Amino acid sequence: MSGSKCTRLAGPLVKQLLESVDTVLFDCDGVIWRGDQAIPGASQVINLLKERGKKVFFVTNNSTKTRKMYAEKMSAMGFNVTENEVFGTAYCCAAYLKTICKLEGKVYLVGSPAMRHELEAVGIQQTGVGPDHVSGKPIDWANVPLDPDVKAVVVGFDEHFSYTKLNRALQYLLQKDCLFVGTNRDTRLPLEGGKAVPGTGCLLQAVETAAQRQAQTVGKPNHFMFDCLAAQFGVERERCLMVGDRLDTDIMLGSNCGLKTLLTLTGVSTVAEAQKHQESGCAERQGMVPDYYVESIADLLPALQG
Amino acid sequence: MSGSKCTRLAGPLVKQLLESVDTVLFDCDGVIWRGDQAIPGASQVINLLKERGKKVFFVTNNSTKTRKMYAEKMSAMGFNVTENEVFGTAYCCAAYLKTICKLEGKVYLVGSPAMRHELEAVGIQQTGVGPDHVSGKPIDWANVPLDPDVKAVVVGFDEHFSYTKLNRALQYLLQKDCLFVGTNRDTRLPLEGGKAVPGTGCLLQAVETAAQRQAQTVGKPNHFMFDCLAAQFGVERERCLMVGDRLDTDIMLGSNCGLKTLLTLTGVSTVAEAQKHQESGCAERQGMVPDYYVESIADLLPALQG
Repeated sequence: MSGSKCTRLAGPLVKQLLESVDTVLFDCDGVIWRGDQAIPGASQVINLLKERGKKVFFVTNNSTKTRKMYAEKMSAMGFNVTENEVFGTAYCCAAYLKTICKLEGKVYLVGSPAMRHELEAVGIQQTGVGPDHVSGKPIDWANVPLDPDVKAVVVGFDEHFSYTKLNRALQYLLQKDCLFVGTNRDTRLPLEGGKAVPGTGCLLQAVETAAQRQAQTVGKPNHFMFDCLAAQFGVERERCLMVGDRLDTDIMLGSNCGLKTLLTLTGVSTVAEAQKHQESGCAERQGMVPDYYVESIADLLPALQG
Repeated sequence: MSGSKCTRLAGPLVKQLLESVDTVLFDCDGVIWRGDQAIPGASQVINLLKERGKKVFFVTNNSTKTRKMYAEKMSAMGFNVTENEVFGTAYCCAAYLKTICKLEGKVYLVGSPAMRHELEAVGIQQTGVGPDHVSGKPIDWANVPLDPDVKAVVVGFDEHFSYTKLNRALQYLLQKDCLFVGTNRDTRLPLEGGKAVPGTGCLLQAVETAAQRQAQTVGKPNHFMFDCLAAQFGVERERCLMVGDRLDTDIMLGSNCGLKTLLTLTGVSTVAEAQKHQESGCAERQGMVPDYYVESIADLLPALQG
């Protein structure tokens, strides 16, 4: 437990670290599963942590699932989890609009059915999801009928993103008092075999460029996701560990919130990248250097079983 | 003809300026027309300039029309113009791929029928235009079949822009040797009554964010449009005047190419904005300060008629 960072977590250090924390936050994709495959040993780690009295939470930038959908997916994989332990951006975005913005009005939603569901669950009306194809000419687009009750534009992952949706978002955002919230800025959604598809960050960037305004994002590395769970569960920062596979979102979130941080190498980022940040001498990049790293969260198993 | 900039062009200065140039470049929207309405006096100005022996060209970032479509629109408004005097980004983009990139292969096109037409006119094959709706799941999108002949992704204005097109562009651009060209970076297309719809810059930004690569753009303020017409018509920079309504594209193009510059106030930018750039002391912003300004290009009429 020295002051040095980016230390390989092994041997007696594992037990020492686990004893120093009451709460462990896990990113999901690349950490406890990859696609539809659980990381071997992940469910035992999670379940044993809970048996040992640790609070465990799941924080994910993916906005395409509700808390309930996550809990079901995880239960099917053998994780002992309840939906109120899951903090995805679909839920957190709704919570942000409700508790921080105290939104009175409707949302123009660029997003998924899961986002619609989480908004409705906190009593926020929205304009609907699904395809919205173009028709007419530029002057018709500029004069597209707007719903006068809309007081916020929300952008999450939307496979039906289109020029028409981009234009509607712009027309709402030209109203100065219209709020502008994004779920997250991930530029790509990584998939098996090193493949990737465009992430929410691309869609958000298009809307921001049109509107010449910057959205408030709720996802990692923004502190809101942590604030949200800390407010509900009374987490002590100094006794909290953030575990993730991405330096720019997971580890940065931990740094932003004053948590201990652990990089796992089953996902996107590498130790070499972390070391480059460390050696850069750039203050901002130090937030992307984890305290510790492991090959897989399965490396925590022996200490939990012993 | 002093060294001071941002001078109101009036009185004997008009004749002096016109005598000092052989070639005049005009932006179109906001300069010679607004939407489908010619600026009063604009056609007389253009026609008289040509009668007085000046070469006149039209340079526009709008990629939704071919040279022929522009020439027809302008002829119908009373302008004496031929299509080889028109340099739009649909044409210039095709010319850039052919003459500068010497592209051997097909284009994956995010764009309009006009862009398809201009590409075909220089013998470049492309993948087609129109709607491209989403189906399947992320892993299907990542494995979308790619045309092995595609060697360039080209992004222009496309009202059918969609997540599917964004994804296809990404999958091509993940191939390191795939060229990446955009028509222009205008963030909005301004319309009558202060209205606007999203411009090509928004679509390009989405693709750039996904690909984590920057496109080469051919439109103003990039010098390529000027190079393109100068190569064909032998224009002398010092005896050339650029007339436009936008400081960031038109006036910047003129500055980038060493031309004289004239801002007209019938479009987007104002004298106050030009003065702010001038007073900023910022070197880069000096390129957005025009040499002269007029209320409308009709202000050139008396000197041409006299």
